[in-house]
Amino acid sequence: MTMDMVKELRALIGETAVLDAADVATRSAGAMRPDNLQGAALARPASTAEVAAVLGWCNAHNVAVVPVGGLTGLVHGADGSADTLMLSMERMNRIEAIDSRQRCATVQSGVVLQTLQEAVEAEGLIFPLDLGARGSATVGGNAATNAGGNRVIRYGMMRNMVLGLEAVLADGTVVSSLNNLIKNNAGYDLKQLFIGSEGTLGVITRLNLRLWEAPTTRNMALLGLEDFASVTALLKRMDRDLGGTLSAYEVMWQDFYRLVTTEPAAGRPPIAQDYPYYVLLESQGADPEGDSDRFAAALESAMEAGLVVDGALSQSESDCERFWGLRDDVEQVFRDGYPVVFDVSLPIAEMEGYVAGLRTALAEQVPGHHLLVFGHLGDGNLHVIVQVPHDQGTALRPVVERIVYAPLAAFKGSVSAEHGIGLEKQPWIGISRGAEELALMRTLKGALDPRNILNPGKVLPPAP
Amino acid sequence: MTMDMVKELRALIGETAVLDAADVATRSAGAMRPDNLQGAALARPASTAEVAAVLGWCNAHNVAVVPVGGLTGLVHGADGSADTLMLSMERMNRIEAIDSRQRCATVQSGVVLQTLQEAVEAEGLIFPLDLGARGSATVGGNAATNAGGNRVIRYGMMRNMVLGLEAVLADGTVVSSLNNLIKNNAGYDLKQLFIGSEGTLGVITRLNLRLWEAPTTRNMALLGLEDFASVTALLKRMDRDLGGTLSAYEVMWQDFYRLVTTEPAAGRPPIAQDYPYYVLLESQGADPEGDSDRFAAALESAMEAGLVVDGALSQSESDCERFWGLRDDVEQVFRDGYPVVFDVSLPIAEMEGYVAGLRTALAEQVPGHHLLVFGHLGDGNLHVIVQVPHDQGTALRPVVERIVYAPLAAFKGSVSAEHGIGLEKQPWIGISRGAEELALMRTLKGALDPRNILNPGKVLPPAP
Repeated sequence: MTMDMVKELRALIGETAVLDAADVATRSAGAMRPDNLQGAALARPASTAEVAAVLGWCNAHNVAVVPVGGLTGLVHGADGSADTLMLSMERMNRIEAIDSRQRCATVQSGVVLQTLQEAVEAEGLIFPLDLGARGSATVGGNAATNAGGNRVIRYGMMRNMVLGLEAVLADGTVVSSLNNLIKNNAGYDLKQLFIGSEGTLGVITRLNLRLWEAPTTRNMALLGLEDFASVTALLKRMDRDLGGTLSAYEVMWQDFYRLVTTEPAAGRPPIAQDYPYYVLLESQGADPEGDSDRFAAALESAMEAGLVVDGALSQSESDCERFWGLRDDVEQVFRDGYPVVFDVSLPIAEMEGYVAGLRTALAEQVPGHHLLVFGHLGDGNLHVIVQVPHDQGTALRPVVERIVYAPLAAFKGSVSAEHGIGLEKQPWIGISRGAEELALMRTLKGALDPRNILNPGKVLPPAP
Repeated sequence: MTMDMVKELRALIGETAVLDAADVATRSAGAMRPDNLQGAALARPASTAEVAAVLGWCNAHNVAVVPVGGLTGLVHGADGSADTLMLSMERMNRIEAIDSRQRCATVQSGVVLQTLQEAVEAEGLIFPLDLGARGSATVGGNAATNAGGNRVIRYGMMRNMVLGLEAVLADGTVVSSLNNLIKNNAGYDLKQLFIGSEGTLGVITRLNLRLWEAPTTRNMALLGLEDFASVTALLKRMDRDLGGTLSAYEVMWQDFYRLVTTEPAAGRPPIAQDYPYYVLLESQGADPEGDSDRFAAALESAMEAGLVVDGALSQSESDCERFWGLRDDVEQVFRDGYPVVFDVSLPIAEMEGYVAGLRTALAEQVPGHHLLVFGHLGDGNLHVIVQVPHDQGTALRPVVERIVYAPLAAFKGSVSAEHGIGLEKQPWIGISRGAEELALMRTLKGALDPRNILNPGKVLPPAP
């Protein structure tokens, strides 16, 4: 069967376009992963027609297909097995057009995010999705997982940046909803089905992406705050006083700030390490003369109101990069323990109590842990990292997961703000979704992929 | 059957909650409509459970259901017939919560848009969806039709303002995806199915809506421009130079501007009536001292660059209201002819040629017409109005429709930017959507509403 698969797929899309199981096993499973890929074969189609041919063949032969982008996901959403075909979009990596008047780009789904960012910046525009994995993540993967990142507060998630897309259904049908329109109410908005469904409803092959005019100024501050009420009050106040220019509102709890500003981390603390909360504030505007004054005035007024007790303002672009460098130095959590990484969202009013509850439960149930919390607070999204002793990682993971996820049910929080469900969070999706929602998801899956060949086993738990 | 329907539904949700056919026929079909409603009955449930009971009954008895909001739609999306049950959300009109810290509201779907706008403004927040029908349109109808309006360029369409929703499926199943999270990637984003599907996939009963901090300043200008290249160049420039504060970029072609600034219209021209294009520019910010200077400087620089040849700047809020009053005086198109109203979107680069083509075709094929063009240019959305002689309205409508819609196919324009498809545009949806897209829409419809009871005949044309 496996040899047939390789042979038959090679006949469809070419000899070098299909790797066999042995070759698949030489490829890394991803930047953050110690293991290698698994799969009966890996197909690398070069066109939508080839994707359609491959899926049509797989559907006819009941072969499971795992779509593969940049392999930067964190939830085992692109894991394969000995039976599956890995479908990599690596050869569909062409930027087909950038239109600076309409402010949109047409791209194949295998284009790397950073490649697109740089290409549009040359036109005085930005593609504002930004995240740590920008150098490997593909825009197709970004769309399939509805990526978030650092500037959601201003530009929304990937869903808000996709104007149109082309996808191939399980049976090989090509559904083209490619168009560059901001407004289009001509029937159901089909692209929404494919965005965020992690390759379980179709394979995204091309996209029309919205671009924005590039801001010309940037001001940042790293601020120390005494209590969580100030963190939320400052968010409201900055969102109001910076009037449309607020582009990031990131929060670091003290433990995380200390970790990324203390050796062996490369960063050093711009302000003292004793505050319970640190806010990274960014404003991007278009007024080189006025913007920094306005930014400083808004902050001064917040200090007078007692919301901020200490702070460092950026004086240059390199200061901005240094501030972001602290927030982005997530690799530090891989030191000194086995990190269990979470990506939850919850109402802002619940956050302080939620984190306090985590501290208590972890102290009781997980000896030797470290709790690190930071996140995109402006979007209600916390990254919670629990380090446990290396030799107990596997045993403690389910304990830690229950501690982190279970309390979310009470206030309709999400077990995944931006990383998605994949395999890893599938047992926990019921915390965030009711039985009727899961049943409706299964109805959609059954309607679009009746033979269950597209990324089977991901996202949706088995029917009860 | 009809008497049974009334009787059985009264048994389910109460005597006064169900009107019979005669009572239905006394109600207007909508503000812009000369006719009255049609229906075997009209149900006015007061809770989600009652909506579920009604739909469950209808599904069991194969009774078609037409969901009814504020009846302000323009595409016959809520038309009933002698056999249908009209399902009005008028009694589900409660604002359940406004949370100024989380910046969200929980509402029943029958809440009138303006009622919500005013309630949140009292909290220093805005719900930024705004359109002429605000006094009657309901937020449920806004969601079901993915309403657009005047500030899409800054805040997006209704889709971008819905955080969560509750809907009842055809068989009476209540699917609650209520939550106040900006980011939630826990499985398929089911709310997207119900937003913009015009009541054909489910009935929206409650919503979580996102709110924004209220801007504290507003600056406007009404500008005269000499050519279309300047219109598009000015959009790019203002979007860049006003850095996040641009809140409207509306364009009026000369004929429309003259119509709304000449008696018997109430408005008078703030600048001369001789320019081919007029731009209504609005910026909303948070800096009372700096914003008007910045706005004036950006405009001055655009004038120096030769993009703008004349203009009036607002000096007060009443100036702003006067400028908007011109743009919003759409009622003038109902004078002096039978207006055929369109709502198309297309790439900005195609607009000038598209409108020129309309002029030529109308001159050849529609004697005695007037062409009026205006729209949300920043979103690629043009409102095209063709007035024809009253006694030839019915005969000329299909001729005019073909002239307006057919050219859109060449550049993937949309026959509906924001009004939706309903019954009126159903014959034309194929201009904007391919056979595979329509087939996939039918797959969704079949999966969610297998007996085809929800707003049957709307949006989707019969299968080929």
